[in-house]
Amino acid sequence: MNSLRKKYKFEISPQTVDFNYQITLASLTDLLLTTAGYNAEENGFGMRKLNEQGLSWVLLRLAIEIEKRPFQYENIEIETWIESVNRVSTNRNFCIRNNEGRVIGYATSTWAMIDNVSRRAQDLFTLDNIRAFESQQTVPIEKPKKLDSCSGEQIDQFKTKYSHIDINRHVNTMRYIEWVSNYFSLEHYETKKIKRADFNFMSEILFGDEVTIHFLNGVDNTYQFEIFHNGKTSCRAKLVFEEK
Amino acid sequence: MNSLRKKYKFEISPQTVDFNYQITLASLTDLLLTTAGYNAEENGFGMRKLNEQGLSWVLLRLAIEIEKRPFQYENIEIETWIESVNRVSTNRNFCIRNNEGRVIGYATSTWAMIDNVSRRAQDLFTLDNIRAFESQQTVPIEKPKKLDSCSGEQIDQFKTKYSHIDINRHVNTMRYIEWVSNYFSLEHYETKKIKRADFNFMSEILFGDEVTIHFLNGVDNTYQFEIFHNGKTSCRAKLVFEEK
Repeated sequence: MNSLRKKYKFEISPQTVDFNYQITLASLTDLLLTTAGYNAEENGFGMRKLNEQGLSWVLLRLAIEIEKRPFQYENIEIETWIESVNRVSTNRNFCIRNNEGRVIGYATSTWAMIDNVSRRAQDLFTLDNIRAFESQQTVPIEKPKKLDSCSGEQIDQFKTKYSHIDINRHVNTMRYIEWVSNYFSLEHYETKKIKRADFNFMSEILFGDEVTIHFLNGVDNTYQFEIFHNGKTSCRAKLVFEEK
Repeated sequence: MNSLRKKYKFEISPQTVDFNYQITLASLTDLLLTTAGYNAEENGFGMRKLNEQGLSWVLLRLAIEIEKRPFQYENIEIETWIESVNRVSTNRNFCIRNNEGRVIGYATSTWAMIDNVSRRAQDLFTLDNIRAFESQQTVPIEKPKKLDSCSGEQIDQFKTKYSHIDINRHVNTMRYIEWVSNYFSLEHYETKKIKRADFNFMSEILFGDEVTIHFLNGVDNTYQFEIFHNGKTSCRAKLVFEEK
């Protein structure tokens, strides 16, 4: 018998907070991905196991809703479970609680499994046991949105460097979130808080790629971004803020 | 009675490693600074205590020598102690050991205490008890070097952004190290290892400052950098590599 939902504890470390002493959206996402990694490992289909077979997990979409980003040294708990599994993708959900056990946020994510050489999606039903973890349990937030192309103005341009690259030899997920978070001023973060963030990850960025970031200022505190590498779309993001 | 030397344990977390699965120089420095922070706190003159009096610690110089940067999930121990204290600055040393207790590196640092408003150095002899921790115990590496101005070519230019800024509302020390580490290619890190790094921190960089990085390629695997903000020198760095 397996347990479909598991909880993991974290302390918000000083290296992960911004000037407000609150964890950045990028570092919060990193904790979610760490949680997903721990849980997949325990369930028998973690990255190490997949790598042995020349396979990897790839994050396709992510949505996070957070009431208030936790502060430095706060203890939080992230609960995670698999909602559904089909041949091409699987949905994993998250519930974030503060030290008193009160829910402060939810997240939901979509993943595919790829072959490390061909980079093509593989049939998830070939994975031992994964369907036994399908809970059909949802989270009370909207699914990760499919984001439209954003043809706004170019706001940043650079080549990817050593510090952007992770053990998979591509740009780490945290960096995309950092890059779009960097559009905003300190004043913005002082007066507004992130309510919801949606990310679509479409193609990986490698070392030395030319990155451009485009921005479309929507209405109602909604900001949309598109990250290109060598002219190709890599990531679309939509951040919704609200007044503090 | 106080203990002049204290040891702190760390596990190398996945967020801190590069594509080689080894902790980056920036994250290793961050662990050294965390160690310094813990120890100062225990000794009664940590950042929190100083902040209550409108004061802060400022890192002036740092030198690190490392045999091999530790790998992901490795457990290391960092021992730290104060070597000397004079009115304007204090020297703190570090010894880094691997899981078997073997020494894999040393570091040595120079700090001043500043007034948060005037940003001027304050007399360290006014600090309760700090001289009781003066051990006169050295490390077997050269003191942090005073680095010369580097009038080499400009290799990078950008404005500081949200993700660069820490709780002190200036650019975090880790970022300087990341910026100079980013000069090198993945091939460089595959064939060479960092032997020694020297940093001189000269003036703080604030949000929105225009940063330029200059580089002078020396001989014998020695690389020198100078970071300017709005035309003023902020940091000088010297990295010495050797073949793996």
